[in-house]
Amino acid sequence: MFLGMGLDSVVRVATDELGKMKPEVLEARIQEDLKMGHLPAMVMATAGTTVLGAYDLLEALADVCDRYGVWLHCDACWGGGALLSDKHRHLMAAVHRTHSLAWNFHKMSGAPIQSSAFLVNEKGLMEECNQFKAEYLFQPDKCYDTSYDIGDKTVQCGRKVDSLKLWLLWKAVGDAGMAAVVDNCFQNAQYLAEKMKQTDGFRLVIPEFECANVCFWYIPESLRGQEETPDWWQKISKVGPAIKERMVREGSMMMGYTPLTCKGHVNFFRIILANAKSDRTDMDFVVSEIERLGKDL
Amino acid sequence: MFLGMGLDSVVRVATDELGKMKPEVLEARIQEDLKMGHLPAMVMATAGTTVLGAYDLLEALADVCDRYGVWLHCDACWGGGALLSDKHRHLMAAVHRTHSLAWNFHKMSGAPIQSSAFLVNEKGLMEECNQFKAEYLFQPDKCYDTSYDIGDKTVQCGRKVDSLKLWLLWKAVGDAGMAAVVDNCFQNAQYLAEKMKQTDGFRLVIPEFECANVCFWYIPESLRGQEETPDWWQKISKVGPAIKERMVREGSMMMGYTPLTCKGHVNFFRIILANAKSDRTDMDFVVSEIERLGKDL
Repeated sequence: MFLGMGLDSVVRVATDELGKMKPEVLEARIQEDLKMGHLPAMVMATAGTTVLGAYDLLEALADVCDRYGVWLHCDACWGGGALLSDKHRHLMAAVHRTHSLAWNFHKMSGAPIQSSAFLVNEKGLMEECNQFKAEYLFQPDKCYDTSYDIGDKTVQCGRKVDSLKLWLLWKAVGDAGMAAVVDNCFQNAQYLAEKMKQTDGFRLVIPEFECANVCFWYIPESLRGQEETPDWWQKISKVGPAIKERMVREGSMMMGYTPLTCKGHVNFFRIILANAKSDRTDMDFVVSEIERLGKDL
Repeated sequence: MFLGMGLDSVVRVATDELGKMKPEVLEARIQEDLKMGHLPAMVMATAGTTVLGAYDLLEALADVCDRYGVWLHCDACWGGGALLSDKHRHLMAAVHRTHSLAWNFHKMSGAPIQSSAFLVNEKGLMEECNQFKAEYLFQPDKCYDTSYDIGDKTVQCGRKVDSLKLWLLWKAVGDAGMAAVVDNCFQNAQYLAEKMKQTDGFRLVIPEFECANVCFWYIPESLRGQEETPDWWQKISKVGPAIKERMVREGSMMMGYTPLTCKGHVNFFRIILANAKSDRTDMDFVVSEIERLGKDL
């Protein structure tokens, strides 16, 4: 939309039940487009989707993209933190085969908002694409190496030095500290999902979450053990907003809910474990607080 | 460029010697374009140009735009602060006739970077243009008036609440305090320009500056009183970078220099008076420090 290409130029590729793009469907759509005389330009993969936390299979997508000369971009804004962890890096295997990658260090990697990186694997490309050479902004005749003036590489001009806080953070806690934040997010998510599996009234939206997302319905006692008709689901769709209103009014928690129409899911709660300071006690509180707020629904 | 319209769709309109767009030239270019079957879509006016600080004549430009049904945007990023001051508001007379306006409160209006407003004079337009209605981000079924969820009006999604610091600042210092910051910027610029007019070796690039910009050449003693040949100007073009290098190495000042090729000007110093805490003592220092650093050139 913003680049002027228009939404008609965007092709949706089907995902599996976990939310991962299906590489064989991608290839079929590319072939279809080529037959129609279109030019497939870019595949937008995701490492850690917003709702379900799915990691696309980068290796398989890169194979497809290589075959057809298509640019492979990876939106790792949420899930990119996995790269910092020896335990979870495998989720992004073949990331080096992507052509560009977006990564928000303020999402799972412990930096304060905003701290976003856009990486490309071709030196000089950002200048080539973005530079205006505005003579009144960037003077080449300075007494130092002006290749460090990165202003002309970017779309934005005057702005805060967001990279500095990431650099300071990394210097302060080291590789191990960065990994610990990420590992803690994943660990909290796994603990919470496990606990919900074992607690009456909680139902996970998918069996396992790859990233630090936990999506679940809460089924109040009054609706348990009934036939799950469209009418029943309609009632379930009101549970999220009702509990959310209560938690907002009490000020005890903040938590998002969302439907996922493309998968036929009505409103469910979606928790993102991104806080380095959260621990199991907080996860226990999430479960007991939802039970308390939803008891009489 | 970024909207995909391409630089070939951008028409430059000539400016006068102060840097103001010439309304009669604008009208002639629009007529020319219409004759060629093109569709003039938007005029980009400026209130406070980056280098010379020129304020475009909004009333005259609005008259032209109205006649041809063209959108009038005003880039008031630098000079918009004038709106806060009873003394200087006249520079933006007819601003209400523009269709959109950009204003960086971190430039002249005292807010910390970044604090930028984009204003349109049609309610609902931003939603209409930008909204995606991403169901997983913005839920309409909340317990409060969701028209306050402004996320779907903007291009960006997760980001800092830049409006808060502007609101706090304005609450803290009031309208009078906001005006005082702006008036001080203009006053420092006027004082500095007057002082330079009376000091040997300083030459202003234009006779008067409308905004809080002061652009000037420094002519070292060794180059004074000579015929101003192209060769002489070539020497002058090296003075800015040389003095800048000295001030950077000493750490005594930071100041930009720039050529202005479209007006045939070689490198000159450009000072922007945007600091609320600067006063006449600082202006005096600027002059004496440049004299000191440039003495033996």
